[in-house]
Amino acid sequence: MGAAMRFFSDNAAPACPEVLEALAAANRMDTAYDGDAWSKRLNAALSAVFERDVEALWVSTGTAANSLALAALCPPHGSIVCHRDAHIQNDECGAPEFYTGGAKLLLGEGEGAKLAPDTIAAMLATVRNDVHQVQPAALSITNATEYGRVYTPAETAALGDLCKARGLGFDVDGARFANAVARLDCAPAELTWRAGVDALSFGFVKNGGLSAECLVFFDPALAAATHYRRKRAGHLLSKGRYLAAQILAMLDKDLWLANARAANGAAARLAQAAGDDRLVLPAEANEVFIRVSAEEAAALRAQGFDFYDWGPGEARLVTSWDSDPDHVDALAAAIRAL
Amino acid sequence: MGAAMRFFSDNAAPACPEVLEALAAANRMDTAYDGDAWSKRLNAALSAVFERDVEALWVSTGTAANSLALAALCPPHGSIVCHRDAHIQNDECGAPEFYTGGAKLLLGEGEGAKLAPDTIAAMLATVRNDVHQVQPAALSITNATEYGRVYTPAETAALGDLCKARGLGFDVDGARFANAVARLDCAPAELTWRAGVDALSFGFVKNGGLSAECLVFFDPALAAATHYRRKRAGHLLSKGRYLAAQILAMLDKDLWLANARAANGAAARLAQAAGDDRLVLPAEANEVFIRVSAEEAAALRAQGFDFYDWGPGEARLVTSWDSDPDHVDALAAAIRAL
Amino acid sequence: MGAAMRFFSDNAAPACPEVLEALAAANRMDTAYDGDAWSKRLNAALSAVFERDVEALWVSTGTAANSLALAALCPPHGSIVCHRDAHIQNDECGAPEFYTGGAKLLLGEGEGAKLAPDTIAAMLATVRNDVHQVQPAALSITNATEYGRVYTPAETAALGDLCKARGLGFDVDGARFANAVARLDCAPAELTWRAGVDALSFGFVKNGGLSAECLVFFDPALAAATHYRRKRAGHLLSKGRYLAAQILAMLDKDLWLANARAANGAAARLAQAAGDDRLVLPAEANEVFIRVSAEEAAALRAQGFDFYDWGPGEARLVTSWDSDPDHVDALAAAIRAL
Amino acid sequence: MGAAMRFFSDNAAPACPEVLEALAAANRMDTAYDGDAWSKRLNAALSAVFERDVEALWVSTGTAANSLALAALCPPHGSIVCHRDAHIQNDECGAPEFYTGGAKLLLGEGEGAKLAPDTIAAMLATVRNDVHQVQPAALSITNATEYGRVYTPAETAALGDLCKARGLGFDVDGARFANAVARLDCAPAELTWRAGVDALSFGFVKNGGLSAECLVFFDPALAAATHYRRKRAGHLLSKGRYLAAQILAMLDKDLWLANARAANGAAARLAQAAGDDRLVLPAEANEVFIRVSAEEAAALRAQGFDFYDWGPGEARLVTSWDSDPDHVDALAAAIRAL
Repeated sequence: MGAAMRFFSDNAAPACPEVLEALAAANRMDTAYDGDAWSKRLNAALSAVFERDVEALWVSTGTAANSLALAALCPPHGSIVCHRDAHIQNDECGAPEFYTGGAKLLLGEGEGAKLAPDTIAAMLATVRNDVHQVQPAALSITNATEYGRVYTPAETAALGDLCKARGLGFDVDGARFANAVARLDCAPAELTWRAGVDALSFGFVKNGGLSAECLVFFDPALAAATHYRRKRAGHLLSKGRYLAAQILAMLDKDLWLANARAANGAAARLAQAAGDDRLVLPAEANEVFIRVSAEEAAALRAQGFDFYDWGPGEARLVTSWDSDPDHVDALAAAIRAL
Repeated sequence: MGAAMRFFSDNAAPACPEVLEALAAANRMDTAYDGDAWSKRLNAALSAVFERDVEALWVSTGTAANSLALAALCPPHGSIVCHRDAHIQNDECGAPEFYTGGAKLLLGEGEGAKLAPDTIAAMLATVRNDVHQVQPAALSITNATEYGRVYTPAETAALGDLCKARGLGFDVDGARFANAVARLDCAPAELTWRAGVDALSFGFVKNGGLSAECLVFFDPALAAATHYRRKRAGHLLSKGRYLAAQILAMLDKDLWLANARAANGAAARLAQAAGDDRLVLPAEANEVFIRVSAEEAAALRAQGFDFYDWGPGEARLVTSWDSDPDHVDALAAAIRAL
Repeated sequence: MGAAMRFFSDNAAPACPEVLEALAAANRMDTAYDGDAWSKRLNAALSAVFERDVEALWVSTGTAANSLALAALCPPHGSIVCHRDAHIQNDECGAPEFYTGGAKLLLGEGEGAKLAPDTIAAMLATVRNDVHQVQPAALSITNATEYGRVYTPAETAALGDLCKARGLGFDVDGARFANAVARLDCAPAELTWRAGVDALSFGFVKNGGLSAECLVFFDPALAAATHYRRKRAGHLLSKGRYLAAQILAMLDKDLWLANARAANGAAARLAQAAGDDRLVLPAEANEVFIRVSAEEAAALRAQGFDFYDWGPGEARLVTSWDSDPDHVDALAAAIRAL
Repeated sequence: MGAAMRFFSDNAAPACPEVLEALAAANRMDTAYDGDAWSKRLNAALSAVFERDVEALWVSTGTAANSLALAALCPPHGSIVCHRDAHIQNDECGAPEFYTGGAKLLLGEGEGAKLAPDTIAAMLATVRNDVHQVQPAALSITNATEYGRVYTPAETAALGDLCKARGLGFDVDGARFANAVARLDCAPAELTWRAGVDALSFGFVKNGGLSAECLVFFDPALAAATHYRRKRAGHLLSKGRYLAAQILAMLDKDLWLANARAANGAAARLAQAAGDDRLVLPAEANEVFIRVSAEEAAALRAQGFDFYDWGPGEARLVTSWDSDPDHVDALAAAIRAL
């Protein structure tokens, strides 16, 4: 077998052809920043997806989208409840702290990087309501989570109710939002504003995009200061049309859902091969966590499969929109043969 | 003529074909962030351009590149000397303050947005050396300037000498660095490290790029913390190869210089048409500032030429790598006919 | 003559006896932070001074008071209009930038460090209303100014009208507010909320206090976040009662006004001695700026008078609540004799 | 019995007479800020205490001292290892985040709010050495801890060795450093620089001071930027001599140790009365944590003793330099009688 079969990360995948075509189609003179024809269509396109008027801003990274959302929801003297395994805590080099001006993250526990209302309520109960402590201002969840689990509409709504009762803003890191929607086969609105979500970092890059993520505010008023923050953070690209065009291309004919279904389907085949004994967690999106000994991991790699170890005795397999069915079948077979 | 002939901004121009081809060529699976093959070639490619070992980081915007450079050169309790008309002061919504943690910009005067050593020395002389005042830590110039002027190697070196004598870091906002090099026909090293420059925001987007700028540190040690700051600011794209590929494509066979020469040449034709009486400033790069009455401006617009008014009685004409020679000739003729 | 006669700064003066007595009287166990009996009286005491319900917070320095006020009025992506000679620009090492999270100061001109509405309107007119520029959010004036001038109630109200019309918050740095009120013999309300002022840094230290300044919000709602910001900045002293006690002692029987009148009166005697020819500016508070040659300044110093040179050919003489009448008379005579 | 007998907090105690006398003695004109005679003696006085040249800065609060120390040791993209119960995490409203520009606190566990080297090593092992995660830059411990425990010289040195091996700065929150030294009867140097400590927030306010804490840098070079940060944070008081005078008065004839011994002794009597069954933790400084039922706590309060509940079934009793021996004896008797 020639080249390695890589199951490292959906970040490693290429952009899908429609995205490259969209870049080419946008490659003509237009107004700079977000004054161009593509950027001007963004609000309407996202409003259609979410079945209400939203305000949408393109940015280049999920880190920027997450951090801008959190800065809109939490003051410097506030805190953001999130899971201990959240991307915003572990993989953004303190970007939330930078953008918020030094807010704290309050870290909670829960299987598969999911937070439950009871857990959050217990966390909130530890905070004294005085000026000596930062006061909780927002909740941030990741859907699908960093461990490939999803929050259902009902679970999300339960968190939204808690947020409303406690006066917390509600943010969703949706780097793999498409995979969650594809898995749940629900309306995007059910996982967001109808469940009380204020802001969504709607990810496209892991799902076949090249360099465009979309920050969606379900209350457009929340977005006002964010336009300044985006510019101030250096995220208002001068040729913004190329970002808007990517997003529009992936919304067109629900390509974002088709791509996510492909990735989820590949993961499901791997999970089925792994079986209950090997699966660390149910594989609900495009990430599969399996138990493998060091020898087994080495054996898989010797067959050309690349992936990350994920703690002792575990491996993470990530599929993407373009996972080669032959590679997936080969890996499934190799896992079965362990 | 159907469509408008636009001389608004080089930001409005499309990306050049080689850049789109590079995106297509990079469109295959590779390691995420800056671990890919293209990103790994960046330091060497820029080191070749500058004839010394440099550390180069891609980012998506000039604002990010400038602000990261300034954060590397100036502490929160420091100040940055720049021209009153500098982009970092007027067009970045306070990004330098955001990235530095609240440094001040000290604003100086000078024709064509150029600062002279005497001006800077006089500015520095107003600062008391005590803890009640932020202490000057860096100088930032723009080359070519916001008014289409260039600093020569000798002028740059004189500023570099001042920086060295005063212990200031030296940053160049090179959003149109290519236009300056093309104009001066000098080695890039002459306008940078040989003249004492520490950091350069090397612009590609205005010059035919799509979404990639390059931050260059001439002392690689200066870059160490910047890798963290870039991530923390949300500027470490997960599919960074598409940024590196753009830059590499534009460095290849000196496309960056060819593009800049095209833009400069178009500007020169407009400047020649304007003549000394109409020219507000010498047109040394790709921006031409001319004196026009409101009626004259209206007359030009009526003929299909779009551009910005620039203060009362003045207009700014910007050319780009792809300025249509017919449009340029038409505008030159229209200016002559005023 | 033995010890030098010092006219350097009102910061150098001792605390007045009533303040020390108040410290002694407060020297018993009480609740920490601002839960003590003295701190709880602060709002009422200041509300009486200002003839309306205000929210008052003690802090240790004018820099903290000013910066907290500005942080309440200006977001990180905003700007604060102030005079080029303002203390917040020149003497606080960037504290406003630190507390606001990186806002900009827009610097205006005006004799005696005073800003006029026309000047401010012209400054505002230079700001484009787009996301590329920080947007003006507040005006900050100093009354009495850094050059010993005062804003009258009418002048203040004119600025307040401008702020209201333009949506700007209105802050007064009142390090020498007492001197302004003493000079104008007006109700404190006339120089503050009746004139549209939102926040006042009400200075006590220069006027006979030891370590207590008072930040006053005329709309208590504005103060809500400031309680957190004060703690977060390390300005919530654990034994806050000693700060509250100082302020209460100086408000009692209008000691603050008596002290300010003493300082103003001493300055007036010096100004009279200087005469129109030597006076750089009218001496309306407790600072006198006079023209003296280097030889004259040396001659004064040879007689035991200490003071700061203030630019070439000028000297600053500052009086305080306890300026020794004999020293003042001696300096007045020495100036006359130059 | 008339007034309540309060065991709430050492913050509630008055200042000791020597401190008030020192304020009176300093109450004459002198140079402002830290140019006065008292401030100039500070470095020498602290250098004598610590048996080496140190750089000492007065500030008004422990929060300011801690935060300035951390800002000197940790960049915005770094993290600070501390105990989950640390004051810097729970009681400073995010001041460390504010001063550092958004660093993270990494929270560890350990009985009595003490961290052990193994715990810290395990925490460090969870951090990937890449730009996606903030990198540990400093360790901060509290001695005596928030739970009245002390780190011995040997324990401190073991942590210092770890810091040195891992390239971490080492900060001690010494709000009750005096109590630790008094308990251990060791040289202050043994608990600080000889054990590898870089910065100490040396507390005086809880120990009989009025408003002065002392930030000590054992490497004076570390202090350079802190002078600017102190000013920028509004902590450079204009009449700084009153802070320096307090510290000098408490260092004189080792008053700080005498005061701490008094407080520790009172706590020891309470701890003895409580006995092993009631003591939650050994009482090594001036805080005693005891197990009491709600009924028992109510019974104590009915007898005039005030204190905080500390979690379910526990109470915190804090003594201070001036704890009334009769009150202490009464409380000891009451505890025995429960």
